[in-house]
Amino acid sequence: MGGVDSGIFIRHNILGEWAKAMLVKVGVADADAGIVADSLLAANLRGVDTHGVTRMLGVYVKRIEAGVMNPVSRLEIVREKASTALIDCHNSIGQLGARFAMQKTIEKAGKTGAAFVATTHSNHYGAAAYWAMMALEHGLIGFSSVNAPATLAPTGGCQAAFGTNPFAIAVPAGKDIPFVLDMATTLVARGRIVLYAKQNKELQPGWAFDARGIPTTDPQVALKGLLAPMGGYKGYGIAFAVDILSGILTGSNFGKHFPGMLAENLEKPTDVGGVFAAINIESFMESGEFNARMEQAFAEVRGCAKAEGVERIYTPGEIEYTVAKERAQTGIPFPPEIHKEYIELGQRLGVPFPEA
Amino acid sequence: MGGVDSGIFIRHNILGEWAKAMLVKVGVADADAGIVADSLLAANLRGVDTHGVTRMLGVYVKRIEAGVMNPVSRLEIVREKASTALIDCHNSIGQLGARFAMQKTIEKAGKTGAAFVATTHSNHYGAAAYWAMMALEHGLIGFSSVNAPATLAPTGGCQAAFGTNPFAIAVPAGKDIPFVLDMATTLVARGRIVLYAKQNKELQPGWAFDARGIPTTDPQVALKGLLAPMGGYKGYGIAFAVDILSGILTGSNFGKHFPGMLAENLEKPTDVGGVFAAINIESFMESGEFNARMEQAFAEVRGCAKAEGVERIYTPGEIEYTVAKERAQTGIPFPPEIHKEYIELGQRLGVPFPEA
Repeated sequence: MGGVDSGIFIRHNILGEWAKAMLVKVGVADADAGIVADSLLAANLRGVDTHGVTRMLGVYVKRIEAGVMNPVSRLEIVREKASTALIDCHNSIGQLGARFAMQKTIEKAGKTGAAFVATTHSNHYGAAAYWAMMALEHGLIGFSSVNAPATLAPTGGCQAAFGTNPFAIAVPAGKDIPFVLDMATTLVARGRIVLYAKQNKELQPGWAFDARGIPTTDPQVALKGLLAPMGGYKGYGIAFAVDILSGILTGSNFGKHFPGMLAENLEKPTDVGGVFAAINIESFMESGEFNARMEQAFAEVRGCAKAEGVERIYTPGEIEYTVAKERAQTGIPFPPEIHKEYIELGQRLGVPFPEA
Repeated sequence: MGGVDSGIFIRHNILGEWAKAMLVKVGVADADAGIVADSLLAANLRGVDTHGVTRMLGVYVKRIEAGVMNPVSRLEIVREKASTALIDCHNSIGQLGARFAMQKTIEKAGKTGAAFVATTHSNHYGAAAYWAMMALEHGLIGFSSVNAPATLAPTGGCQAAFGTNPFAIAVPAGKDIPFVLDMATTLVARGRIVLYAKQNKELQPGWAFDARGIPTTDPQVALKGLLAPMGGYKGYGIAFAVDILSGILTGSNFGKHFPGMLAENLEKPTDVGGVFAAINIESFMESGEFNARMEQAFAEVRGCAKAEGVERIYTPGEIEYTVAKERAQTGIPFPPEIHKEYIELGQRLGVPFPEA
């Protein structure tokens, strides 16, 4: 989570409408703009502001204005089998390829029991959880992962070779809330370092290194240096595996070959790849039985003996679920400097940023 | 890796023959015994002694003799779709269900592009990497994971709720060695703690906790306590995800409901589940191009600037590959106490343990 807890609060539905209008203003079709805005807003609601309107709307607008990301989507299936597909996204906004890919995945998994679909020549697609969670309303288990610009060194190295390369898994759990795991293979997401930098907050020790591989707690230094992988060589291995699936297998950028996917690169297409998978629960077990087993597992995990000082044990995705319920009431918090930036951006495009 | 570097060395092919003969002696069919012995021997060759003949042969023999694991295999497909299957293993030795499942996975992925097959009511299946690597000879990407008796607490808890729940991914890399990642979701595998205990070696700080959740470096205390997850809540999340796929979805044991899968449980079937997946590279890219991209990625990772004191950067699976080449020459090392135990076990069954 990269949530911020203070600042100016904007009601979420009003913020979503503004984000959509901004995207339409730079040439995105109405329906497409709605899809992108909804994905960003969902991240904000869940407290994942690193992937929300608060950070990404401005980035997407700048990249479209600079001509390095295509506002008009073109999604083409270039290879297809019963349980797989490869979709060339022709530099469309990442969310549009991701949504199309996950729809295909769900459709195929419904027929064959499991499916694995990939996108290529795409862009930043928001939070991985959003795409994995698309499977939930169909009663399927969903998965997604994506690679990203290099910021993590292999074990023994002091040079960036892999991105944060996040992945997400979503599983329905009957009457309980769903299981949703969305994690970067670094100890913390790069977007979190960016938020700390904007807020001038010191990093926790062990999160990052400077460019020579020496530990640092300065977010500005870390942004020019390296992020620590989670679990040492294990995080390196998972980041590499995500890079193979999302980058190498799809024909997209991999390893250190990224020109940057956010506002720091206004010159070249990102050419990022993503993968999407789904498993049809009914191919293994009646969904009623599966739901009962998930509810039991959740109850048993929450009922574990607690470490000293711990009030409750959360299931993966439970904190984000709770934040989403709160923020649907309170609105989405904007740190003052982002609020100011967005007021100016809205003025420039003639779409006034909503009042708090 | 849980390798031991000293002790008595036994030539690998002779050790494999002995392991096979021992299994036949307790009622395993000739071909089945060969499959199980080969899986264990491969782990020893790769330096993963925690999953090798050195540790598991004795365990399997004891469990078969006690009547809690079935020496005669019975593998039944109980659900099947174009890209999925569920195999009831009826308490057969884990390797036999795993091999059958991975064969089905490979066959299905060849037709539909991707497949996901599960086993239920099975037993310990050796190292996950062995099953993922079965995909390599068919030019596919392979995956396997399995759950295990609880030894890891959820974040905030001090009570075991998940096993080490390992998973493995294997990817062909053209003329280079394959990418093979095989990792427990704990910081270290439980088998490694067992080896340290047998050798009276102190654990590294941060690996384990005692039963109340307080850090310990005593392997005996750790075996009655908890293992630390890798990357904190991320390791907890991955262990939970593996448990959902391998245990909950397959109708096998999950969470804390394991009676034990090794020699500590000679009373009840283990009832463990496993999952196996494969992706057909040719459904996304010509294999020649894929291989070239993998070779390039490996060269670039190995060529990264090195941290101070580091001689070389290894790709995932490279250390195990190197050890396998060495051990094919030197033989498999046995610590003296295991050597003594196996001489006695061989004498008792009338299959003399090979001379060093």
